Amino acid sequence: MKLWQKNTTSLKEVEQFTVGKDREFDLLLAPFDVLGNIAHAKMLATIGLLTAEECEQLVKELRAIYKTTQSTSNSPLEDGGTFTIDNAIEDVHSQIEYLLTQKLGDIGKKIHSARSRNDQVLVDVKLFLRSEIEKTVHTIESFFQLLIAKSNEFKDVLLPGYTHLQLAMPSSFGLWLGAYAEGLVDDTITLKAAYDVVNKNPLGSAAGYGSSFPINRTLTTQLLGFTGLNYNVVYAQMGRGKAERIVASALANVADTLARLSMDACLYLNQNFGFISFPPELTTGSSIMPHKKNPDVFELIRSYCNRIKALPNEIMMMTTNLPSGYHRDLQLLKEHLFPSFEILRNCIGMAGLMLSNMEVKKNILEDEKYKYLFSVEEVNKLVLKGTPFRDAYKKVGLDIEANNFQYSTQIHHTHEGSIGNLCNDKIEANMQKVVDSFAFETYHQAIGKLLQD
Amino acid sequence: MKLWQKNTTSLKEVEQFTVGKDREFDLLLAPFDVLGNIAHAKMLATIGLLTAEECEQLVKELRAIYKTTQSTSNSPLEDGGTFTIDNAIEDVHSQIEYLLTQKLGDIGKKIHSARSRNDQVLVDVKLFLRSEIEKTVHTIESFFQLLIAKSNEFKDVLLPGYTHLQLAMPSSFGLWLGAYAEGLVDDTITLKAAYDVVNKNPLGSAAGYGSSFPINRTLTTQLLGFTGLNYNVVYAQMGRGKAERIVASALANVADTLARLSMDACLYLNQNFGFISFPPELTTGSSIMPHKKNPDVFELIRSYCNRIKALPNEIMMMTTNLPSGYHRDLQLLKEHLFPSFEILRNCIGMAGLMLSNMEVKKNILEDEKYKYLFSVEEVNKLVLKGTPFRDAYKKVGLDIEANNFQYSTQIHHTHEGSIGNLCNDKIEANMQKVVDSFAFETYHQAIGKLLQD
Amino acid sequence: MKLWQKNTTSLKEVEQFTVGKDREFDLLLAPFDVLGNIAHAKMLATIGLLTAEECEQLVKELRAIYKTTQSTSNSPLEDGGTFTIDNAIEDVHSQIEYLLTQKLGDIGKKIHSARSRNDQVLVDVKLFLRSEIEKTVHTIESFFQLLIAKSNEFKDVLLPGYTHLQLAMPSSFGLWLGAYAEGLVDDTITLKAAYDVVNKNPLGSAAGYGSSFPINRTLTTQLLGFTGLNYNVVYAQMGRGKAERIVASALANVADTLARLSMDACLYLNQNFGFISFPPELTTGSSIMPHKKNPDVFELIRSYCNRIKALPNEIMMMTTNLPSGYHRDLQLLKEHLFPSFEILRNCIGMAGLMLSNMEVKKNILEDEKYKYLFSVEEVNKLVLKGTPFRDAYKKVGLDIEANNFQYSTQIHHTHEGSIGNLCNDKIEANMQKVVDSFAFETYHQAIGKLLQD
Amino acid sequence: MKLWQKNTTSLKEVEQFTVGKDREFDLLLAPFDVLGNIAHAKMLATIGLLTAEECEQLVKELRAIYKTTQSTSNSPLEDGGTFTIDNAIEDVHSQIEYLLTQKLGDIGKKIHSARSRNDQVLVDVKLFLRSEIEKTVHTIESFFQLLIAKSNEFKDVLLPGYTHLQLAMPSSFGLWLGAYAEGLVDDTITLKAAYDVVNKNPLGSAAGYGSSFPINRTLTTQLLGFTGLNYNVVYAQMGRGKAERIVASALANVADTLARLSMDACLYLNQNFGFISFPPELTTGSSIMPHKKNPDVFELIRSYCNRIKALPNEIMMMTTNLPSGYHRDLQLLKEHLFPSFEILRNCIGMAGLMLSNMEVKKNILEDEKYKYLFSVEEVNKLVLKGTPFRDAYKKVGLDIEANNFQYSTQIHHTHEGSIGNLCNDKIEANMQKVVDSFAFETYHQAIGKLLQD
Repeated sequence: MKLWQKNTTSLKEVEQFTVGKDREFDLLLAPFDVLGNIAHAKMLATIGLLTAEECEQLVKELRAIYKTTQSTSNSPLEDGGTFTIDNAIEDVHSQIEYLLTQKLGDIGKKIHSARSRNDQVLVDVKLFLRSEIEKTVHTIESFFQLLIAKSNEFKDVLLPGYTHLQLAMPSSFGLWLGAYAEGLVDDTITLKAAYDVVNKNPLGSAAGYGSSFPINRTLTTQLLGFTGLNYNVVYAQMGRGKAERIVASALANVADTLARLSMDACLYLNQNFGFISFPPELTTGSSIMPHKKNPDVFELIRSYCNRIKALPNEIMMMTTNLPSGYHRDLQLLKEHLFPSFEILRNCIGMAGLMLSNMEVKKNILEDEKYKYLFSVEEVNKLVLKGTPFRDAYKKVGLDIEANNFQYSTQIHHTHEGSIGNLCNDKIEANMQKVVDSFAFETYHQAIGKLLQD
Repeated sequence: MKLWQKNTTSLKEVEQFTVGKDREFDLLLAPFDVLGNIAHAKMLATIGLLTAEECEQLVKELRAIYKTTQSTSNSPLEDGGTFTIDNAIEDVHSQIEYLLTQKLGDIGKKIHSARSRNDQVLVDVKLFLRSEIEKTVHTIESFFQLLIAKSNEFKDVLLPGYTHLQLAMPSSFGLWLGAYAEGLVDDTITLKAAYDVVNKNPLGSAAGYGSSFPINRTLTTQLLGFTGLNYNVVYAQMGRGKAERIVASALANVADTLARLSMDACLYLNQNFGFISFPPELTTGSSIMPHKKNPDVFELIRSYCNRIKALPNEIMMMTTNLPSGYHRDLQLLKEHLFPSFEILRNCIGMAGLMLSNMEVKKNILEDEKYKYLFSVEEVNKLVLKGTPFRDAYKKVGLDIEANNFQYSTQIHHTHEGSIGNLCNDKIEANMQKVVDSFAFETYHQAIGKLLQD
Repeated sequence: MKLWQKNTTSLKEVEQFTVGKDREFDLLLAPFDVLGNIAHAKMLATIGLLTAEECEQLVKELRAIYKTTQSTSNSPLEDGGTFTIDNAIEDVHSQIEYLLTQKLGDIGKKIHSARSRNDQVLVDVKLFLRSEIEKTVHTIESFFQLLIAKSNEFKDVLLPGYTHLQLAMPSSFGLWLGAYAEGLVDDTITLKAAYDVVNKNPLGSAAGYGSSFPINRTLTTQLLGFTGLNYNVVYAQMGRGKAERIVASALANVADTLARLSMDACLYLNQNFGFISFPPELTTGSSIMPHKKNPDVFELIRSYCNRIKALPNEIMMMTTNLPSGYHRDLQLLKEHLFPSFEILRNCIGMAGLMLSNMEVKKNILEDEKYKYLFSVEEVNKLVLKGTPFRDAYKKVGLDIEANNFQYSTQIHHTHEGSIGNLCNDKIEANMQKVVDSFAFETYHQAIGKLLQD
Repeated sequence: MKLWQKNTTSLKEVEQFTVGKDREFDLLLAPFDVLGNIAHAKMLATIGLLTAEECEQLVKELRAIYKTTQSTSNSPLEDGGTFTIDNAIEDVHSQIEYLLTQKLGDIGKKIHSARSRNDQVLVDVKLFLRSEIEKTVHTIESFFQLLIAKSNEFKDVLLPGYTHLQLAMPSSFGLWLGAYAEGLVDDTITLKAAYDVVNKNPLGSAAGYGSSFPINRTLTTQLLGFTGLNYNVVYAQMGRGKAERIVASALANVADTLARLSMDACLYLNQNFGFISFPPELTTGSSIMPHKKNPDVFELIRSYCNRIKALPNEIMMMTTNLPSGYHRDLQLLKEHLFPSFEILRNCIGMAGLMLSNMEVKKNILEDEKYKYLFSVEEVNKLVLKGTPFRDAYKKVGLDIEANNFQYSTQIHHTHEGSIGNLCNDKIEANMQKVVDSFAFETYHQAIGKLLQD
């Protein structure tokens, strides 16, 4: 086999290998590339590298292209409007420049002054990540509300609480569901940090070393609604791979919360537990085994989410020990990260579908097999009535040994965050605060203006 | 071989296996366990589970124990004062209760009311992480200042800029060092998110399901200087492993910045580059090879940091697919995470030592082999003088082909973040803002009051 | 937003989510599913669950289907012949049963006796992995031969040898290229272990707990050319995820060798080193920067390979802490693993293309800047002439200090594996031995017989 | 804070940082370093770099040192005999040379001819890994035998078999335990591949580029009982990090088997399952909750093993994208890998202790709640009696719906690997074959001769 005979086809093989699937993922960047173009054009006009009229023509054309990138579907991966990248054209940046040149001739060429494809892709990726983070936050928030609602709905339905997977103390569906809601608050905090890292402007860093053009990076920063700049141009370039990793870590946090919830759900649906059930159309059954209600949805959520949890490590592996400066290695980071947003949102959507149709078993703790869950309760009651701790312990222990353990399944937990006092309102307030801190409207306004001022 | 014959030694083997190295790491938690105890005691007094006098006695004794946990060294891993855990005693929580009981008899036993070892270790870990994050932020800040100072000092010394590891355009030491400074700003943002997740009070969650004691968790939250509660008790327990992972991810971000800087430094010290040098006592040489200046310090920083970068994944692997509720698995998370703080700080310290003694080579770009770095400059000059882009490109290209390329090594980059306009002051302002956002003094005041009101 | 309103579309959403991209990857399994079907049918005939005639009809039909799964292209991912999975049909197993039933009516249904989809997919995956491993071994072997040939070709061209990235001692292109060849021998050893794990028959394990049918698993083992059985049916099921992980680890070993070679190549192509060069059509240049010969191919090999290196960890994350027994989580393991084989082979192919067109710089070490590479040589010469080691060291050291270092660039290394005695023939013999140990012809014969006896 | 003021202490700080904990781990290499020394001395004598008498004196002295490295304990980490590394001495190689020089004067110095510390540590690590793999294989084998014995003992005790964590079909303790036994066979296959990679001689590669000394590497290969050489000296050096990673992957495979077994055990011990139990001294209880039998041992096995599963990735992260040639980064690979062997063996030992004391619940499947496990059985019975599959399915389904499902808990599975025909003898034969393939006695003989010919 001669895999590598040098011949006339080399060039083509090399091209095919180096382009890979990149054009597919570039499609996702198209609307953001247009936005970067508009901002860049407007800035060039302020420093005399475009005339006002040239700028106007370019912006008009770019807005038209923008429309072609907009989908009617919600899925960024399925349908990106009518915009496509021609087969003969390498990437989204070239496609857009090509479209401009077709329409406007030499004016179209002028827009590439004072920038390079390196900083174009940098700004595109950041705008894409910003937008995807926003969609993800909204999805999380919606799921959070469902968890809170379900926690409130089932706040009086008790559940065994396990430690070491051993029966320990009474818990409740209210606690269980509320716990995952509160978990999402912390996850969203890490997503906010990722957002802050992402929401800075790398445009103007050129190939990573700046240029002699007297560009105004502060202006493009404002036009694109960024909260600030990646000032240092070497750092702007170094942000590639780093932004992706930090975002992936935040997604991994959300994914971990979802995966754990799914593990619990699979366990609780298991017949030995039998705490929850779902309507048949949400589980997969078997014509022969009527007891089978396979939780395939939760298993796949768990699996997708565990895969997302491995993503930060993958990105790290692909960028470790690369010296500073651009490397082509970075191109491949898109392939697993970009689809992860939608996968995660789909997982959240499916988890929501499941939970909103979940039936919970009432009176679980009435079953005598759970009686020892209440032993600590009985001790505490004695303590609260004045019996010293050690004596109370001893008494209950002896009762149990003597098979004489008396207990009540009425429990009275009142402290903050306990069965009787879930503090879901406080948790909601915390979530609201985190969501508000994103201040998405700031960038919406800028983008809105860019597209139609 | 009969590894597992059941016999009288079983119990001991099991104990040895289950305790493992835990007591060693528990020592690091000792001061924080004391703080948790003081806050808990004060709270118990407000709900009538301790008398005012009992509380006072306990607090006095706990403050005395606290002093024994304080080291004169800066290293939390080497020396934790005179406090030790007796061989016969399982963990730090038991040791402190034992000391209290020795001194105060039955009063010492009362302090364990309304809590469990589960929430004790939860609060200890959070207080430990909070403290370690603070130390790490201070170390980062100090290193940041050094990078900025060095960036300013060498702002006029040019350096080749590479893309694809190929000569691309002029860069500078000012850019190179400033880039890592700005990188630390973003890293610190992720550390702030970790801090926000950590800085919430889990105390009162008992074994993860709360209790019937009418405890006041808001009070202990204030006493310990937390900014809020992990309200839901199931979530408070679920935070174990999660807090560790989020903190480890933030450390990994800092580590990545440091590792990349080290890679650059190893490359620049290589004789084919020869951009930087260090005094002999900071490199390892060879009696026979005088050219040898091995950058062992940077290689080890890189290695330690790359190991830290693998830590979030390790924590994830150890906690994946565990159902909710406490599992003993969590105990082992301490072993690699706890020392990582000091390792990272040592790495930063060593990087600081190296950089503050680094000599940089002047006039690198005067060497003719770097001349093509300036080709883009020459094109841009023509463009700025009015030549259309494509024509300028063509002219310079033909000059190069004809071996007639004329260039000047004087470059004039003026835009934000470029060689001539590093914006280090803006970067400093950004760092200051992030550091200020931690508001460490808030918790210092609370802890100070706890220890001496 | 109501993501999860229960309504008539639930079922469809659930189905879409649970099927995901699975049908796409199932296509790759089609030929192997057919093989499993043929073996199963033949076995059923021997135990009376099919008549000889029924079996004959089924086998004839299955062989016809097999042909439709065969591609004219070499790429398993691009083109799998004309075989497709109908939209209304869930997976490859159902599709094939459907085709059989269309043609043969009730006989088609009989083939599903005494098995389940669980063991069908198990056997399909193993047959697929076996086939992909074989293709990969052949590609490795071919690349190995190229490395050996190039090592021999350039065995007299010296190269600086670095330790700590510092100039150390003379090396050669012969050593450098031969090293990677020898590395592939060890990598292939790990691929052989993966092959041994894969090459065992899980068929007959049904849903993971066997069945009461008196099936003959030894017979299907022979028919499919497996070297043995996964005897225990619970273990057969447990092999899912495990086989994938072990195979991925072996691929990661090959990938690591390739990634490191690529890193070296990027460094050697860098102008500060300048040890190697490539014809323009194999690098990406720039119309303006004639010095630019970007090694995009090597950068992408490195990136693809580093991603493959993260794959074992990803698989581990997705299967950690799953109790024994099938879980739907396993379905997603295909998505990143299956394409990795072809990606890795493409990377090897591209590396071969590059190396076979690489030009190496002669006389590198004649440059005075490399003179200290020879200091150890000079010491050793003195030692070999009888001067005690310490004295020889001292003499050369003083010469160097006095700027009086005399050296010869003629080096005479003769021991096994050194510059003058590469032992490439021995390394080839080792590779041959490893490749022979796979004994691929054993299974070829079985499969050949299955398809046309 | 001035972390990095250059001053007289710099050297010490640097030394402390670069040495780190290396001397601690070097102790583990001491006996192997001695072995490498003996072989090297003997070889030097054959090429005239040592006289026969010098060699004899060195060998005698080295054998004496060897004895001091031998422990009476089995733990390589706890006690390495009386051998220590003096505080003033950097590493084990220097310590041994120092001891020789103290005793033999100049003769001691001569032993360092024709090698470097780089190839000394390479050979030490390989000999250490070889020895640790052997110990680990013996421990695995012993545990394997226990699993087989327990599988045979409980072969008639039925257990519910789950898929999707849902009740599926009857399983048995025989199947469950035997599955893990068979899993260890495959794990050991990967350990054998690691052994084959490790068991090759790197000695003589000097600093990674060979030397002009006419050394006989084939001789040292034979003397040290290696099966072959790492011929190419550049590859010999490149084996550092790679050998560690391949070994760690094999350990991870064993760890994964053990972790999954532990997960099953924790589940089966959970009161909702209640399939197994352990004597109180092997679980941790609670004075108050008599039902509590926490499986801490299994939880910690799971956690240790999951940590080992993250180790290959960590090693990969620490070595990724390092160009060829030695880097100091490699030093740190010892810290997590070296202790992993003993940790894994301890985990196996503890798992053995648990399983050998496990009590299994009889007659689990008599409980009516498990009745649907038998539905497939009933269908199959009808099929075997001649009813067409679809009809049999229908009939049983209707019976179930009509609440009229009749079943027998007597199951009759006879095929290979099923409940009634575990094939444990075949599995044992497979294990024996793998263990035999290591042929440890080959190297034992060589080492024995080295130490006392």
